[in-house]
Amino acid sequence: MITKSQVKYIQSLGQKKFREEENAFVAEGPKIINELLEAASMELLELYYSPDWSKEYPAVAGRPGTGRRYEIKEADLERISFLTTPHQVLGVFRKPMPPIPFLLKEGISLMLDGIQDPGNMGTIIRIADWFGVQQLVCSPDCADAFAPKVVQGSMGSIARVQLLYTPLEPFIAAHPGLKLYAATLGGQPLAGAGKLKEGMLVIGNESKGVNPAILALTYQQLTIPRLGSAESLNAAVATGILLSHLVEW
Amino acid sequence: MITKSQVKYIQSLGQKKFREEENAFVAEGPKIINELLEAASMELLELYYSPDWSKEYPAVAGRPGTGRRYEIKEADLERISFLTTPHQVLGVFRKPMPPIPFLLKEGISLMLDGIQDPGNMGTIIRIADWFGVQQLVCSPDCADAFAPKVVQGSMGSIARVQLLYTPLEPFIAAHPGLKLYAATLGGQPLAGAGKLKEGMLVIGNESKGVNPAILALTYQQLTIPRLGSAESLNAAVATGILLSHLVEW
Repeated sequence: MITKSQVKYIQSLGQKKFREEENAFVAEGPKIINELLEAASMELLELYYSPDWSKEYPAVAGRPGTGRRYEIKEADLERISFLTTPHQVLGVFRKPMPPIPFLLKEGISLMLDGIQDPGNMGTIIRIADWFGVQQLVCSPDCADAFAPKVVQGSMGSIARVQLLYTPLEPFIAAHPGLKLYAATLGGQPLAGAGKLKEGMLVIGNESKGVNPAILALTYQQLTIPRLGSAESLNAAVATGILLSHLVEW
Repeated sequence: MITKSQVKYIQSLGQKKFREEENAFVAEGPKIINELLEAASMELLELYYSPDWSKEYPAVAGRPGTGRRYEIKEADLERISFLTTPHQVLGVFRKPMPPIPFLLKEGISLMLDGIQDPGNMGTIIRIADWFGVQQLVCSPDCADAFAPKVVQGSMGSIARVQLLYTPLEPFIAAHPGLKLYAATLGGQPLAGAGKLKEGMLVIGNESKGVNPAILALTYQQLTIPRLGSAESLNAAVATGILLSHLVEW
């Protein structure tokens, strides 16, 4: 059984305003739920699942830990799911807070300047996690990383990266030694950059690219060589290509 | 003015069955329409546009050529558009046919084995066009490249690539000298492959990867080094990364 107020609470977490008020977010599906339950950074608040799920994952369903558990009917899962077709299990988790102070780790990190598409945002978080990039600094107008679509798109990687939403110029001013590399269409050919030991790769908005005020603060602009005629590459694809060339293997 | 039968005809082109019967497809928005009108391979059948568009692009609107032109009201554009918000102009184009025989060009081409997400399909076509890959051989279960979502996602690149939908095993059997490189999670590290003068890169289905029957026919399996913990990369992102390392700059 699920109460009306539970349904209302979960649905409200589709909105950024309520995610911030409640300091919580939603994730769905066995794969992502397993990853979040395993992550030390994630605190489960509530777990709703179908009888099928608890049969398939008895160890997960029965594992001691925080959070209330509710076995509910498939029809009730449909009432709370953000997916077109609900996927066995839905969890409400505490939204992790960025560490204070936010200390930059060694290696390469990402700066996202106005990534607005939730699909791109989730894919970029997954790419970061693949290449071992642990920190993403996001302008306040980026898509919210804890929106249901972004969480699903990140495929669980959201549990393994640190995200800081903050105005970018003051952040850069507060980190004077930081080398910024911006992805642009008219910079140095990527091949010449070699591997980077450290620095921050800036990815700009899907249609406008990196903000000129940020561009003015970058150490180097990098461009993926174009051999054909497409005008641009998708922001997430460009992030993947750039990181694959810049990180040390 | 737009007639009921015109509305019905355009809406029917949202379905693969009717696109094949009518041998036509739909594209929308000034940028993509401009690119398709400029492409020698594309034949315009019908063009529907708002008064705003013909003011903004008088040269395009007035350019002589094939295809009937209809200036219609914004409200009528809403009735025929496949977009959430119609974008000034919608064109119906003749679906280009793959050349017979389909002769493989020099350089690198792509083989798509069950790419089912229309967004990925469009993004992959755009990536191919960026890196100068001119031919894509697609298994019959791939998303249809002429579906409205794919056409929009390709951002006009669909005008500049050749697509062949065909069962992959007979295609491979008919091309005995062809070197197939498959993207997998357990192959040779990408760094060792170097640049390729020619060959075909096989990208597999989003969740199942490359079909084992096709894998058995590949020359080499390639893997993008993973430094973090994400389980996989999005199929389009992986295509972009692999091509960026394999094509000669």
